[in-house]
Amino acid sequence: MHAILDADYLCHLGFVRDGAPVVLPTLYARVAERLYMHGSVGSRPLRCAGEDTGIAVCLTVTHVDGLVLARSAIHHAINYRSVIVHGTARQVTDPAERSTALNALIENIVPGRATDTRPANTKELAATAVVALDLDEVCAKVRTGDPNDDPEDLTLPHWTGVLPVARTYGTPTPAADLDPTITIPHYLTNR
Amino acid sequence: MHAILDADYLCHLGFVRDGAPVVLPTLYARVAERLYMHGSVGSRPLRCAGEDTGIAVCLTVTHVDGLVLARSAIHHAINYRSVIVHGTARQVTDPAERSTALNALIENIVPGRATDTRPANTKELAATAVVALDLDEVCAKVRTGDPNDDPEDLTLPHWTGVLPVARTYGTPTPAADLDPTITIPHYLTNR
Repeated sequence: MHAILDADYLCHLGFVRDGAPVVLPTLYARVAERLYMHGSVGSRPLRCAGEDTGIAVCLTVTHVDGLVLARSAIHHAINYRSVIVHGTARQVTDPAERSTALNALIENIVPGRATDTRPANTKELAATAVVALDLDEVCAKVRTGDPNDDPEDLTLPHWTGVLPVARTYGTPTPAADLDPTITIPHYLTNR
Repeated sequence: MHAILDADYLCHLGFVRDGAPVVLPTLYARVAERLYMHGSVGSRPLRCAGEDTGIAVCLTVTHVDGLVLARSAIHHAINYRSVIVHGTARQVTDPAERSTALNALIENIVPGRATDTRPANTKELAATAVVALDLDEVCAKVRTGDPNDDPEDLTLPHWTGVLPVARTYGTPTPAADLDPTITIPHYLTNR
């Protein structure tokens, strides 16, 4: 489960607002047995996470690894790795833990970047809520491999197999206002 | 919003179970102003969608397009395109609409595939629930372009720009039991 979580930085975070479900794309990072998210102190789920009871959430991460083309329509599927975390998200108030979390959120997106950027200042930190979710109730679902066709379909004339899918990274594009003497850092060219 | 929805086939579907949020990765397809999902008739959200009231859901689709590296930690971000649909999912019982939906679900994953596979038979259709969600309450969020650094940070020595991210497809891998005289179909080699 750690490997699946560590291979991504974007989750879909579900919570209940006025009785109805809400699912928001959200950045996250794992530190030991805890996930961290952050955002504006004004945003709804983060504000609720600051209340005594915290906020009940479901955090889901899904990697698509392949399109599974079976001989029959019904057995078409996706190869994927998914982790679902249920629990209570709570705001982090301890300055040291907040700092650890914000570092992890940068490092999880681009390893090596946290030490090559200006850290948040006091005003920015005051405007940022950090939320923690413990990895207590976690399940993983994974599908790999070939299609599972029914025996009676094996002689059908349709091509069957898997089309691999991956997330890939392109060439870093400098910002328009970047000083041209600043070169692309090694942690980006290694990617 | 149609373009963002049509560029993917996997959403994260949120609903409320016993008062708590649940977010499941789910395949979907759009037909006009309606999204379709399918699954086993036994699965919780699909079963609830079959009740008179349907089931309140939030369906979210997110494409990650780039990692945005600002000069300051606080302005790091993701370039993305996201659509969030709120509404009530209801089971589809009309045979013609069910057939349209199941076709669309295959075609949305691999265009051209629906006519090159064995269609679902009566028994398979009976075990499959099809659920519809109308595109009534829909919002899109998109971020593109360069980092937004604060003016006082523009002279910092850190590289800044965007690392592009894309979903890419590899070489189709035939199933181990595929008749070797069956060649890869054109709708896969074009991808």
